[in-house]
Amino acid sequence: MPTVFPPPTPARDTAAPPRSLQKGQQTRSAILEAALGLASHMGLEGLSIGALAELMGMSKSGVFAHFGSREELQISVVREYHAKFEEEVFYPAMAEPRGLPRLAGLFERWVRRVAVEIDSGCIYISGAVEFDDRPGPVRDALAGMVQTWQDALARAIDLAVAEGHLRPDTEAAQLLFEVHGLILALHHDARFLRNPDSIARARRAFDRVIAAHATEAGQQALLQRAAGASAR
Amino acid sequence: MPTVFPPPTPARDTAAPPRSLQKGQQTRSAILEAALGLASHMGLEGLSIGALAELMGMSKSGVFAHFGSREELQISVVREYHAKFEEEVFYPAMAEPRGLPRLAGLFERWVRRVAVEIDSGCIYISGAVEFDDRPGPVRDALAGMVQTWQDALARAIDLAVAEGHLRPDTEAAQLLFEVHGLILALHHDARFLRNPDSIARARRAFDRVIAAHATEAGQQALLQRAAGASAR
Repeated sequence: MPTVFPPPTPARDTAAPPRSLQKGQQTRSAILEAALGLASHMGLEGLSIGALAELMGMSKSGVFAHFGSREELQISVVREYHAKFEEEVFYPAMAEPRGLPRLAGLFERWVRRVAVEIDSGCIYISGAVEFDDRPGPVRDALAGMVQTWQDALARAIDLAVAEGHLRPDTEAAQLLFEVHGLILALHHDARFLRNPDSIARARRAFDRVIAAHATEAGQQALLQRAAGASAR
Repeated sequence: MPTVFPPPTPARDTAAPPRSLQKGQQTRSAILEAALGLASHMGLEGLSIGALAELMGMSKSGVFAHFGSREELQISVVREYHAKFEEEVFYPAMAEPRGLPRLAGLFERWVRRVAVEIDSGCIYISGAVEFDDRPGPVRDALAGMVQTWQDALARAIDLAVAEGHLRPDTEAAQLLFEVHGLILALHHDARFLRNPDSIARARRAFDRVIAAHATEAGQQALLQRAAGASAR
């Protein structure tokens, strides 16, 4: 199955490394996990090697040895977030039939990730606000990941057009802009205003936006998906 | 003309204070202006009395004397931002005829403020992301201002229904959610992805969302507004 996401990082593919290296990688993973939690609350700019060392019960130099610099730590957190996002949102949706069912699957998993998992706030969204004015490698890493995800969505929209589920005059970039706006509004209202209606609002708006572009065949495909979901 | 925004702070209304007090207020205003610029780049959490003192060529204690605490400074910046937002977006739009022309005026000025004035990033949007996980008086001040603005928009939508410009079954909260999403997507794409198409995308999406809810009379009112704008 073709994917527009870059292949997994080599670390996930290679054969088991020697034990000492394995131990080092486990520590690195544990630090990264803690850093991801910290960044989702405090922002990527809120990440400090000192705070992280305290959280891990390690020395600053111990943490530093694994990442070399605060910037490298921030970039590693962005990559880790991206890998989790792929696992939770992207890959499962790829198992759905191409066309509107897959697009709906991507949106639904994205909604759940952003709204339900309140504790792990979206680093894509908070990072975009933190780094819109700050050029440099962290911003580049973040923008690259966001662009990869947007390209994947645009491709899912194009496939839905190719399948005959969306009208041929559907402009992928415009539809993507509008769907992304619903996710951003959901993130804002659910996390900042603590409005419990926002998940339902996002879903209703998505259905309306899609209905405005869907063909008869597309509506049938969505109905079949919904019937399958309720039968499961 | 009724407004749902709170009345201006008394400082703007009272008679001229004695000269020494006036001088103090001028200094406070100058500090606040600098703080607003700093916060729009670095975020409200990036505001420090030290950085501000350096920027103003003042001592830390000199800055401190005007605000008392970093938190009070942050809240003052939020209030200042809100006052400017009212002046640029809210009050001019209130001069337009109630109904869809006014709603379109609010949206258009909001778009310009968010997208064109790239240098003064939206503190409502960046603040929401910074403070979604941080309870306290700064978050409360920010959420209060955002809610005030959302209430004003919801009222403009309700008035457009009352004028017969939007269909009677239009749900203000849902339409508001969708329109707000367009602004958030615009902010994201214009400021973070540096995509020059995003203003046009936001306008096109707004026209489409409104068209889906507008009555014949509403469409006429919008055409008249557009004709008036091109004649000016």
